[in-house]
Amino acid sequence: MAEKEKMTIVVFNGSLDHAMAAFILATTGASMGMQVSMYFTFWGLNIVKKNEGPLPGKGWMRKMLNLINRGGSRRLKLSKFNMFGLGTGMMKKLMKETNMPSIDDFITMAHQMGVKMIACTTTCGVMGLPKEAFRSEVESMAGAAYFLNEARQSKISLFI
Amino acid sequence: MAEKEKMTIVVFNGSLDHAMAAFILATTGASMGMQVSMYFTFWGLNIVKKNEGPLPGKGWMRKMLNLINRGGSRRLKLSKFNMFGLGTGMMKKLMKETNMPSIDDFITMAHQMGVKMIACTTTCGVMGLPKEAFRSEVESMAGAAYFLNEARQSKISLFI
Amino acid sequence: MAEKEKMTIVVFNGSLDHAMAAFILATTGASMGMQVSMYFTFWGLNIVKKNEGPLPGKGWMRKMLNLINRGGSRRLKLSKFNMFGLGTGMMKKLMKETNMPSIDDFITMAHQMGVKMIACTTTCGVMGLPKEAFRSEVESMAGAAYFLNEARQSKISLFI
Repeated sequence: MAEKEKMTIVVFNGSLDHAMAAFILATTGASMGMQVSMYFTFWGLNIVKKNEGPLPGKGWMRKMLNLINRGGSRRLKLSKFNMFGLGTGMMKKLMKETNMPSIDDFITMAHQMGVKMIACTTTCGVMGLPKEAFRSEVESMAGAAYFLNEARQSKISLFI
Repeated sequence: MAEKEKMTIVVFNGSLDHAMAAFILATTGASMGMQVSMYFTFWGLNIVKKNEGPLPGKGWMRKMLNLINRGGSRRLKLSKFNMFGLGTGMMKKLMKETNMPSIDDFITMAHQMGVKMIACTTTCGVMGLPKEAFRSEVESMAGAAYFLNEARQSKISLFI
Repeated sequence: MAEKEKMTIVVFNGSLDHAMAAFILATTGASMGMQVSMYFTFWGLNIVKKNEGPLPGKGWMRKMLNLINRGGSRRLKLSKFNMFGLGTGMMKKLMKETNMPSIDDFITMAHQMGVKMIACTTTCGVMGLPKEAFRSEVESMAGAAYFLNEARQSKISLFI
């Protein structure tokens, strides 16, 4: 059997709009028969953090950072026109009205379609995020070398 | 005749600086003999919206969104140091002084050089943007599958 | 001897987090045996500006722009949660605590590992930045055609 074509996406930004772009591309790629990897790093980690649960991190600085930078699919904001939540709320309404999946739905769909979701060990180290801070769909944690190795075998590599 | 090398650019951000970067790369690529596609999505759609004309969108939420997120090549702002227009105005002056084309000029040039400009159907659906909201240089609307199909045949794919 | 695999990174954003992402990828790529080029443009130029020295640029507009947009590896701020320097300061502390190199260290390391650092002539022209505005590790200035020529020979091209 021929190897599947690969696509690798670094998800660096953690806004609602960046998350949507990343998951639309990932699930479309998977539906076209590609093997897709999503590598979540920096603010992008927020997208796949658990929505509930205790604040992770040792020491007050990490606790504070992880409080301000809370994350979770339902807390994502638009990168523009958030307007204290008003713009984000409107966008979510419009997405629903046009039958766009929510980020929660997208994560489930992507997982079911075989999209690999990986959290960046380096950022997790700095921010004090253990594996348990992430949803079960995040299958593993890996460093930059893992990403680059996937990317160099990929037809498409994007930094979102 | 040999096939042309391809380059595909997702234009996700809609600031003046991102627009400049995208068009400098697109027109340079075309001048080097590459077949370039620009796929405008999310805020990037603002770059190729008409500067004039009625506000598109059905329902008050879309009308309001398209008012706040007005777009059009002459309304783009710097992603940093906009400073209520002062920074953006200064940058435009400096661009003119160094004979840098305006975004309007870049769109015309790119079109004449055979750069394909496509608007993302998915975002247009959510935001309520019909084909008529865009300048004539935007030759069609297409979904993520179209972009990925172009990208996997491309030597260079970028997400800007 | 076989040619080295290539990776090319456009560094467009100039925040501390984008700089970290770019240098982590560049140095990891180099350690895996890849020939890495970093092409600094727009705000990304700030990362490789000298930390000291007179303000570059002719005319009051450029002088003012280069004052506001001062740059230098030690002046970079987080793209989110800067909070008047508090967030950035905390992040730097956490980076140090986890033995993450500073951007200064990363630039030195990357240079020693053979990563090529290039400044974009076009942006430098608009902003009035001469070669002397940059650290010695920046080996040359080049235009978009140079970048695209590197990118089309690369296995991985990213726009950060």
